Amino acid sequence: MTAKLQPVSRFPIPDLVALPDDIREVILAVQEKAGFVPNVFLALAHRPAEFRAFFAYHDALMLKETGSLSKADREMIVTATSAKNGCLYCVVAHGALLRIYAKNPLVADQVAVNHLKPDITPRQKAMLDFAIKVCLHSDEVGDADYSALRKYGFDNEDIWDITAITAFFGLSNRMANVISMRPNDEFFLMGRVPRT
Amino acid sequence: MTAKLQPVSRFPIPDLVALPDDIREVILAVQEKAGFVPNVFLALAHRPAEFRAFFAYHDALMLKETGSLSKADREMIVTATSAKNGCLYCVVAHGALLRIYAKNPLVADQVAVNHLKPDITPRQKAMLDFAIKVCLHSDEVGDADYSALRKYGFDNEDIWDITAITAFFGLSNRMANVISMRPNDEFFLMGRVPRT
Amino acid sequence: MTAKLQPVSRFPIPDLVALPDDIREVILAVQEKAGFVPNVFLALAHRPAEFRAFFAYHDALMLKETGSLSKADREMIVTATSAKNGCLYCVVAHGALLRIYAKNPLVADQVAVNHLKPDITPRQKAMLDFAIKVCLHSDEVGDADYSALRKYGFDNEDIWDITAITAFFGLSNRMANVISMRPNDEFFLMGRVPRT
Amino acid sequence: MTAKLQPVSRFPIPDLVALPDDIREVILAVQEKAGFVPNVFLALAHRPAEFRAFFAYHDALMLKETGSLSKADREMIVTATSAKNGCLYCVVAHGALLRIYAKNPLVADQVAVNHLKPDITPRQKAMLDFAIKVCLHSDEVGDADYSALRKYGFDNEDIWDITAITAFFGLSNRMANVISMRPNDEFFLMGRVPRT
Amino acid sequence: MTAKLQPVSRFPIPDLVALPDDIREVILAVQEKAGFVPNVFLALAHRPAEFRAFFAYHDALMLKETGSLSKADREMIVTATSAKNGCLYCVVAHGALLRIYAKNPLVADQVAVNHLKPDITPRQKAMLDFAIKVCLHSDEVGDADYSALRKYGFDNEDIWDITAITAFFGLSNRMANVISMRPNDEFFLMGRVPRT
Amino acid sequence: MTAKLQPVSRFPIPDLVALPDDIREVILAVQEKAGFVPNVFLALAHRPAEFRAFFAYHDALMLKETGSLSKADREMIVTATSAKNGCLYCVVAHGALLRIYAKNPLVADQVAVNHLKPDITPRQKAMLDFAIKVCLHSDEVGDADYSALRKYGFDNEDIWDITAITAFFGLSNRMANVISMRPNDEFFLMGRVPRT
Repeated sequence: MTAKLQPVSRFPIPDLVALPDDIREVILAVQEKAGFVPNVFLALAHRPAEFRAFFAYHDALMLKETGSLSKADREMIVTATSAKNGCLYCVVAHGALLRIYAKNPLVADQVAVNHLKPDITPRQKAMLDFAIKVCLHSDEVGDADYSALRKYGFDNEDIWDITAITAFFGLSNRMANVISMRPNDEFFLMGRVPRT
Repeated sequence: MTAKLQPVSRFPIPDLVALPDDIREVILAVQEKAGFVPNVFLALAHRPAEFRAFFAYHDALMLKETGSLSKADREMIVTATSAKNGCLYCVVAHGALLRIYAKNPLVADQVAVNHLKPDITPRQKAMLDFAIKVCLHSDEVGDADYSALRKYGFDNEDIWDITAITAFFGLSNRMANVISMRPNDEFFLMGRVPRT
Repeated sequence: MTAKLQPVSRFPIPDLVALPDDIREVILAVQEKAGFVPNVFLALAHRPAEFRAFFAYHDALMLKETGSLSKADREMIVTATSAKNGCLYCVVAHGALLRIYAKNPLVADQVAVNHLKPDITPRQKAMLDFAIKVCLHSDEVGDADYSALRKYGFDNEDIWDITAITAFFGLSNRMANVISMRPNDEFFLMGRVPRT
Repeated sequence: MTAKLQPVSRFPIPDLVALPDDIREVILAVQEKAGFVPNVFLALAHRPAEFRAFFAYHDALMLKETGSLSKADREMIVTATSAKNGCLYCVVAHGALLRIYAKNPLVADQVAVNHLKPDITPRQKAMLDFAIKVCLHSDEVGDADYSALRKYGFDNEDIWDITAITAFFGLSNRMANVISMRPNDEFFLMGRVPRT
Repeated sequence: MTAKLQPVSRFPIPDLVALPDDIREVILAVQEKAGFVPNVFLALAHRPAEFRAFFAYHDALMLKETGSLSKADREMIVTATSAKNGCLYCVVAHGALLRIYAKNPLVADQVAVNHLKPDITPRQKAMLDFAIKVCLHSDEVGDADYSALRKYGFDNEDIWDITAITAFFGLSNRMANVISMRPNDEFFLMGRVPRT
Repeated sequence: MTAKLQPVSRFPIPDLVALPDDIREVILAVQEKAGFVPNVFLALAHRPAEFRAFFAYHDALMLKETGSLSKADREMIVTATSAKNGCLYCVVAHGALLRIYAKNPLVADQVAVNHLKPDITPRQKAMLDFAIKVCLHSDEVGDADYSALRKYGFDNEDIWDITAITAFFGLSNRMANVISMRPNDEFFLMGRVPRT
């Protein structure tokens, strides 16, 4: 409603036709798949070289097929740590993905408000405890934090994954906060209503 | 889904029939109106005397007809400050009311994640700045904070209202956090989908 | 001395004769009992409906006859948490009550400055640890905090009491801080000198 | 009452007769003047060389005759910053001196609980603002803080005094906190009752 | 000395010969240029896809030829914000680069300890103020922060650069902290002694 | 380079010839020994009585021959806690002394950036944990902190030493921060290059 009038970013949004081919193709592909273009693609296309590195990093972490973190686990980390960073874009957009992957319409709001209260497993709570410490006090992470995760079956590669996802979205949160990146209206409702 | 298995509170939920008449009537009335019983009524009925004082206080602040704060303004204060206190129940339940009163499906998530980003008026932003200072650093509130609100047309009675709403829900947030009061599943979707 | 010239509140103090009968009676009764009218009664009488709910809540928590918290325990919670909130009115007024109930002229100042140092029992220290966590970080309260209290014989109802007292006076602290509620001069000396 | 049973410090209190002559003389002189020996003299006598440096520093700051800070101003700085450091000994002992020098039985409690609320002058409030910044965030002190004091007539030498008093009692607070230095019972009541 | 025995990372360091060709070539090229292989190349080579994205992002920000930030400005941002994040690797390695680019053997330690004290220009101080706010409180960045930079001639593209450098090294800091990435001994002395 | 133009302190530096004899002698002696006059001597000579107490205290703590803390241990405490206080003078000057006493060119930077990462013994890490708690949260120090040190063989007198060194340099840090005391250029390189 009012959203139509709101800017996607404090910075200019490039014209699709003026973009380098590879970036335009990425954007058209995501539009094809999602039915709309998430604003992060438009906002970051302002800087093509950074755009390429950003999404290469994103895909390396979020699309990788190895390790014990499920897709829902990864989006849960993003949602919880983005909430600590006060990042509207990531809480709303990745909360939507979390609802979808977890097939749970409640979990994203639960995770965003207070990571100790959600309907999640003790393993997931330990994962979020670690991620939030990396987000807020990474200088204090030490052996005891590694051990706390190993008790739940996370191995060192999983710990790298949790750390890297948290660190990467910490980058994303800071960019989104400073440029006032606006989440697409579509995200707010995604995964909340059973598909019919 | 999993919610059915989750307790409403760490404390016992009294049987409706065993409750004092006045409390049962309050609960039946809200059920009649809302279509379900918000868990705060069930959880706090564990202590009838406190229940009565709690809802008398609530109604004095949230149902009052005087002053310049709209119902949406009041729920916006509750949503923003409850998010700072990490209170799942109040963010979800009052976020639902905020969406409904503001007729805006996006505003509650915006306010809960970062009160500087929502699609709200400068007057509402000043109101939330003040409320959040009362929530987090009330010992530092002084003349400059009063002046900042007066610039937007808030008078002293409005300032009392903002303060009292913040203070009252600070009480509510602490109770809900400690007893792990669970928001009803119904709240998560309320006000997100246009009524047809 | 200079106090005579200082306002009781940033808001108007209503005329006793203009107040609703029930409120005037409460005020006259407390004056009869204490020898003076504590300013909280005058300051909150500005809003009769809130006044009634406030004191109903207060009495439900502070005058209740059940549970294992002594009156001194309850005032100790108020003094310690009000100090964390920087609330002059409550530290001074409830510190006075604490000295009287505990029959200890030193304990209120001890509790207000550093809750780890007073001449109190380990049970009372555990109680204050919990109350201060509820006051400052209620979103982080969990099973371990409940267990820490149970070790000292507190049951769930006691935990509710500690929580509710802390939460209620958190409300009171925020109101008093924002309206600059001034403690009566009488409180500062109460309970410090042995009665003769 | 219970105080008789409480230790003055976690460390041994030396026997007066075993102390070096100069230290014993200092202690006897303060006893002669105050009517009792403040525990800081007993606790720090455990380390004679540090004792001498501590009181030489103390006297250089608190007994100096130059500058525009009154004795009450200096004790007000000590009381306010010691409260921020949670130092029971200094809040109680220097709060007593503040009441006496200011001839005001209320001001010490006011300053200790919330330095924005006392019955003090705007000049004293600016002084406390600066002292508390030195106490808590000295790394952030800069030109603007100097200017804020100059507006109230403080010159550079006064600013050095405020800083040095805050810094010195920050040392004292840390020692007292770690060794659990206990304030003498006598301090709690000093300056509260008009002399007859 | 003892450094020889210390691990470069908590994670395995891959064998150069086993690495993908492109990554090995990057590493050999940096070794050729610097005379040693900075440990960040070895530690991150554990994950080739992330390695490629990391250095692509790094180069897009740190090697770009446009905008008004000098190379010293960029390394100054990295040093100051990495110090706030307690990241040993980045403070030491980028402090070395800062000394070299700024041709100033003192500035890196100054910036790392207290960003308000260095021998830098007011423009650089404003740049660091902004970067540190992005680092620690990006959710609070708003119009006033943009304006503060524009007063010193930074345009919007510069603001994006400052933000992106801070955000990217926030990622790097979190990775380095969690995997205990060790700075090479060589960095500690680089740029401190005039070349002869 | 630019350093020559930078003031040593916001306050006047007294003329050597105008100083009291004992202070001038101290300054000439340190110059004889170090080859230059550390700026702390010049800056504090502005107040002779405080100068005498400051260095008497300093020497009582840093030159004492008893106890189990080595000279490197003491300088390590100063470097780590001064970094937490953001004190450029003390981190640079005492970091230099730490490098020299520890015969380790890397340890000062390690300790200053993140006290959990240096190449130091577990005993030294426990010592720094305690010192940093005294520096930042001395009001929370209790029995558990004493026990943690005793496990590593520290006795009560060592604990006093750690506390007093931290407390004394907390004083020094606050003075240096407020008066902008500048470290001599000589300190930055001391102990970094092997003597030939």
